[in-house]
Amino acid sequence: MTVQIGVIGCGMMGLDHVRTLTAAVSGAGVAAVFDADEERAARAASAAGGARVHTDPVELVRDAGVDAVVVASPDQTHEEFAMACVEAGKPVLCEKPLATTSEACWRVVEAEMCGGRRLVQVGYMRRFDPAYLEMKRVFDSGEIGDALMLHSVHRNVDYPPSLPASALVTATGVHDIDIARWLLREEIVSATVHTPRPSGRVRPDFQDPQFLVLQTEGGVLIDVEIFVNAQYGYDVRGELVGERGSVSLVPPAAVSTRRAGMEGQAVAPDFRPRFQDAYRAELQAWVDACAVGETCGASAWDGYTSAAVAEACLRSLSSGRTAPVEVKPRPTLYTESAT
Amino acid sequence: MTVQIGVIGCGMMGLDHVRTLTAAVSGAGVAAVFDADEERAARAASAAGGARVHTDPVELVRDAGVDAVVVASPDQTHEEFAMACVEAGKPVLCEKPLATTSEACWRVVEAEMCGGRRLVQVGYMRRFDPAYLEMKRVFDSGEIGDALMLHSVHRNVDYPPSLPASALVTATGVHDIDIARWLLREEIVSATVHTPRPSGRVRPDFQDPQFLVLQTEGGVLIDVEIFVNAQYGYDVRGELVGERGSVSLVPPAAVSTRRAGMEGQAVAPDFRPRFQDAYRAELQAWVDACAVGETCGASAWDGYTSAAVAEACLRSLSSGRTAPVEVKPRPTLYTESAT
Amino acid sequence: MTVQIGVIGCGMMGLDHVRTLTAAVSGAGVAAVFDADEERAARAASAAGGARVHTDPVELVRDAGVDAVVVASPDQTHEEFAMACVEAGKPVLCEKPLATTSEACWRVVEAEMCGGRRLVQVGYMRRFDPAYLEMKRVFDSGEIGDALMLHSVHRNVDYPPSLPASALVTATGVHDIDIARWLLREEIVSATVHTPRPSGRVRPDFQDPQFLVLQTEGGVLIDVEIFVNAQYGYDVRGELVGERGSVSLVPPAAVSTRRAGMEGQAVAPDFRPRFQDAYRAELQAWVDACAVGETCGASAWDGYTSAAVAEACLRSLSSGRTAPVEVKPRPTLYTESAT
Amino acid sequence: MTVQIGVIGCGMMGLDHVRTLTAAVSGAGVAAVFDADEERAARAASAAGGARVHTDPVELVRDAGVDAVVVASPDQTHEEFAMACVEAGKPVLCEKPLATTSEACWRVVEAEMCGGRRLVQVGYMRRFDPAYLEMKRVFDSGEIGDALMLHSVHRNVDYPPSLPASALVTATGVHDIDIARWLLREEIVSATVHTPRPSGRVRPDFQDPQFLVLQTEGGVLIDVEIFVNAQYGYDVRGELVGERGSVSLVPPAAVSTRRAGMEGQAVAPDFRPRFQDAYRAELQAWVDACAVGETCGASAWDGYTSAAVAEACLRSLSSGRTAPVEVKPRPTLYTESAT
Repeated sequence: MTVQIGVIGCGMMGLDHVRTLTAAVSGAGVAAVFDADEERAARAASAAGGARVHTDPVELVRDAGVDAVVVASPDQTHEEFAMACVEAGKPVLCEKPLATTSEACWRVVEAEMCGGRRLVQVGYMRRFDPAYLEMKRVFDSGEIGDALMLHSVHRNVDYPPSLPASALVTATGVHDIDIARWLLREEIVSATVHTPRPSGRVRPDFQDPQFLVLQTEGGVLIDVEIFVNAQYGYDVRGELVGERGSVSLVPPAAVSTRRAGMEGQAVAPDFRPRFQDAYRAELQAWVDACAVGETCGASAWDGYTSAAVAEACLRSLSSGRTAPVEVKPRPTLYTESAT
Repeated sequence: MTVQIGVIGCGMMGLDHVRTLTAAVSGAGVAAVFDADEERAARAASAAGGARVHTDPVELVRDAGVDAVVVASPDQTHEEFAMACVEAGKPVLCEKPLATTSEACWRVVEAEMCGGRRLVQVGYMRRFDPAYLEMKRVFDSGEIGDALMLHSVHRNVDYPPSLPASALVTATGVHDIDIARWLLREEIVSATVHTPRPSGRVRPDFQDPQFLVLQTEGGVLIDVEIFVNAQYGYDVRGELVGERGSVSLVPPAAVSTRRAGMEGQAVAPDFRPRFQDAYRAELQAWVDACAVGETCGASAWDGYTSAAVAEACLRSLSSGRTAPVEVKPRPTLYTESAT
Repeated sequence: MTVQIGVIGCGMMGLDHVRTLTAAVSGAGVAAVFDADEERAARAASAAGGARVHTDPVELVRDAGVDAVVVASPDQTHEEFAMACVEAGKPVLCEKPLATTSEACWRVVEAEMCGGRRLVQVGYMRRFDPAYLEMKRVFDSGEIGDALMLHSVHRNVDYPPSLPASALVTATGVHDIDIARWLLREEIVSATVHTPRPSGRVRPDFQDPQFLVLQTEGGVLIDVEIFVNAQYGYDVRGELVGERGSVSLVPPAAVSTRRAGMEGQAVAPDFRPRFQDAYRAELQAWVDACAVGETCGASAWDGYTSAAVAEACLRSLSSGRTAPVEVKPRPTLYTESAT
Repeated sequence: MTVQIGVIGCGMMGLDHVRTLTAAVSGAGVAAVFDADEERAARAASAAGGARVHTDPVELVRDAGVDAVVVASPDQTHEEFAMACVEAGKPVLCEKPLATTSEACWRVVEAEMCGGRRLVQVGYMRRFDPAYLEMKRVFDSGEIGDALMLHSVHRNVDYPPSLPASALVTATGVHDIDIARWLLREEIVSATVHTPRPSGRVRPDFQDPQFLVLQTEGGVLIDVEIFVNAQYGYDVRGELVGERGSVSLVPPAAVSTRRAGMEGQAVAPDFRPRFQDAYRAELQAWVDACAVGETCGASAWDGYTSAAVAEACLRSLSSGRTAPVEVKPRPTLYTESAT
């Protein structure tokens, strides 16, 4: 039994998903695609081995031949399309962010609650990365003791000039926020943003790097270096420090080369090679869950909460002080979601 | 379009393949299974979500609903089932070894030549391992210069007591032989086996470890440590040394743990976690090739030649001298096979 | 020509210095020792191959056979003995801290200024550690670009129960403060201390770990994790992040062991094996400088300034806010000292 | 009490020893130097802070102000000067090789036996390298079980064109031979040399690399890759494989740099930075031993035996077969020497 998938948004991310679903995921087919740019839609349809091309995304959602939907369109459209899926009663894997504000995310949460069942998964792919899964396994085994601190580094080679400095938190650091909540199984309650001297490569009003210090309800301290013009490579690192030991991500190199006075390992140029396995595993797990009417991964509640933490970071960045995270109580529909 | 697969042999390896084909490979279905042990066959059929159970392996091959066959039965049956597939004109992925002797492998080669097209792939999964692929990419890029030496290590925790000492080469070291031929694109022409003091854990007549020194037609020297009672873990390592530099496999750890005076990384207990990605990629590539009537990976010729190198090792082990590799000329059907 | 040294304080640290000076430093002899505990003094005298034992530390300073003095007595005595050396016009290598408060350190600075020449070196041995020296060399070469951030980790297995929680900064983190100033050649102007949930192993009023966020005059952000009950080992790490790249300390392991499912490297149990080479190099450099009437390493000004930064951390710890560092202007006597 | 040292031979190696003895070894002074080239002798005398310059090396040995002698002159002179020291009853640290043939080495052994006490140390500095010492400590602790194999790699950037191909074994690989004997506490009884395709950078008659396979009396197999035109760096590696685990040298990097798509660590350009600590420790230990009339490190017996193993390698290289090592029985004077 094949899960027939519709994909809304066929840019770099959407096209990658079409290819992965078509060529490397079991039990899935891409039945329909939509993109505001018809050429991109056509290219994706062809990569899917011949999918229907819709000219209206809401029609795609309602297409009787579509069992489940991937939303990979521009961020400001996520809310509308996720809502359309919820209303149509179809599972949706929505690229992060779920919506552009926590308030908008909350509307999706309310829509799900209204329908009484979870249909939304937010595309926080790190939850499917083998290294983060192993870090969680080690932590859960108890061998390093209770958590005290989590150190994270998130570096990009460069950044689209169109993005505002707030995107360092809302679009980039939000991955670190989500994975911290997932690893620790605790909610974040406050945020302080420190601002190093900005890199000389960025325009004057653009604060890069940023250094977040977050604290959970249980007191665990999380620090996140976000640096999106790091030039040398795409680099994600983390160390979880417990009372008795620590566990760190190992940089994912396949080989080591000795040449010209150096022994070296390649650093990925962007997030796609680094998280390729995670994306495939995420899509496979989502398709498997769709096939049996279940959900997995980050929920709408996770999308809402991580957005709320990011907003606390923005308030701290602007005030220069520690800002509390403001969230509504967790609805019972989501009592397991951070697990 | 789904490639319908029949699986002959549903022990550990066969069952793993059934699961991977069912749950993690795109465009594949397991339609039929056979095992001499009916319970194992039934378990595999169920893991496939309900495949037909054949009681005669040759019937499975002839089953009109079977497009392609995986052979994972005991080694001494490989030749018969691979031949049956060739005769039926169906693609077959045969676990290594292709047959128990190079002479038997040659019969499969001749059967393929008779049919005029390549249908056999031998399950040398290292050719699909991301680390070996990256080693080959670096070597092919020319950055380390021409090859001079290849160092390999192949260690197992322990070994089935039923196996003879010759299996260290024919069943274990043959992986290193095949991958050396593939990496270097050169044939091996001679073999010398050195014998360290045997581990105190093995029975008196069982030579473990063994240390192979092989030389290619172009003079590249290959050394392979085979140690199948290494106790501490399953460990495969390699370094390719060129005129200007070298490239080494990095042990595939996801995380590093600091605890109790040590920083450590896990070593896999057996080959399955180590080569899990390679097996999935091998099956996906084979299914993709089947779908378009092509072949990939190690050919029957590779199966034959690697077996011939292993036999030269056995002759050296017995004589204490360097033994030449004896192979027939490469048929034109296989002119690209080591690539 | 041998520099004759007097050692005040023959506890663990002082005795180590006696041994290193006697057995592994060229051009040095330990001529005299003092310790409030006569047995310890006698043991040190014997380790020196027969040094004079003084019963009054000030007499040791004045001993005509003593060319230079090492002060390794309890912290609260450092000021007095350093002052005695300055007054006697003799070079002194004073273990950190130079004095218990920045105000007291300033008195030593004033005494030196009064004498018109630098005689005091503070025992910040990291400045002589091969790894920090190499980090500085890479940074100074310009290959990673201008500095933006410095991440530091400073973990101890456990901590003397007699010490107050303020010692995490004044006795432990002060090493990280000094090395940051030395690496960056910039002064620190503000400090914020974040407090993770304390380890369950410490008494209720003892804040461990602490997480310092410091900023330099040029805007470089420095974060320092101090965790003195880390249990698993003594672990000092650092990464200096520049505009184009980063440079990190490599954990100093000599060998790697594979055993029982793990590949591991030892983590030092305490600071002595980790910084053994640094201590020897520090003593050799100091002796060499004494022989020609010069100074090297951290100056009294460095001792004063690092103490002032530590005090800003304590104010932040108590207020929960960012605290400015309060220092007097740098006297001309010290214009090169942070270099 | 200072040990007054005379240094014969003030080329690169001798001058390094003069500097180390003068600046970084406790209890030593360089009292006299000799070199056939007067300018080199003068430079060394000055580096020693004013040593006597002898114009006759034998006079230097007899100089009443010289307690002990370092021989760092050309290889063919070692025998003569070592003999002169033995005859004068003075301790001598002779750079390897002790003499140019095992027969010549044996004459030094006989001279020592004649005098009835050990005076000769051969400069196998690896025995003082912290990494090899730690490897030995781990092995001796029993945690990896009894030894089965030792893998070694010995690479140089390039090689003096004046040296013959036999020097790959007699001057370079002899370090690996000595350290294997020392680590394993076993004598080597046979040698087989395999010859990879030579590097295209060397002249036609020059076999580089060479691959030695040695076996000990207890059956341990030792393989040594010697490659003296490796171009990329000076690289010494080793792994000792036991029945239960293995222990490997860790490449000695102080920092790791991330830049331009790579994370890398420097590889030393030649043996001096790599073994700088070992040379200092060797000289300190030798001076300490001289001061109390003892010996340490590699003995004349070690110099003789390692030379005999190297000669077996040359016989194998020429015959293409395994060659037995031919040594005389170990005299009782040396019963502890390999320890």
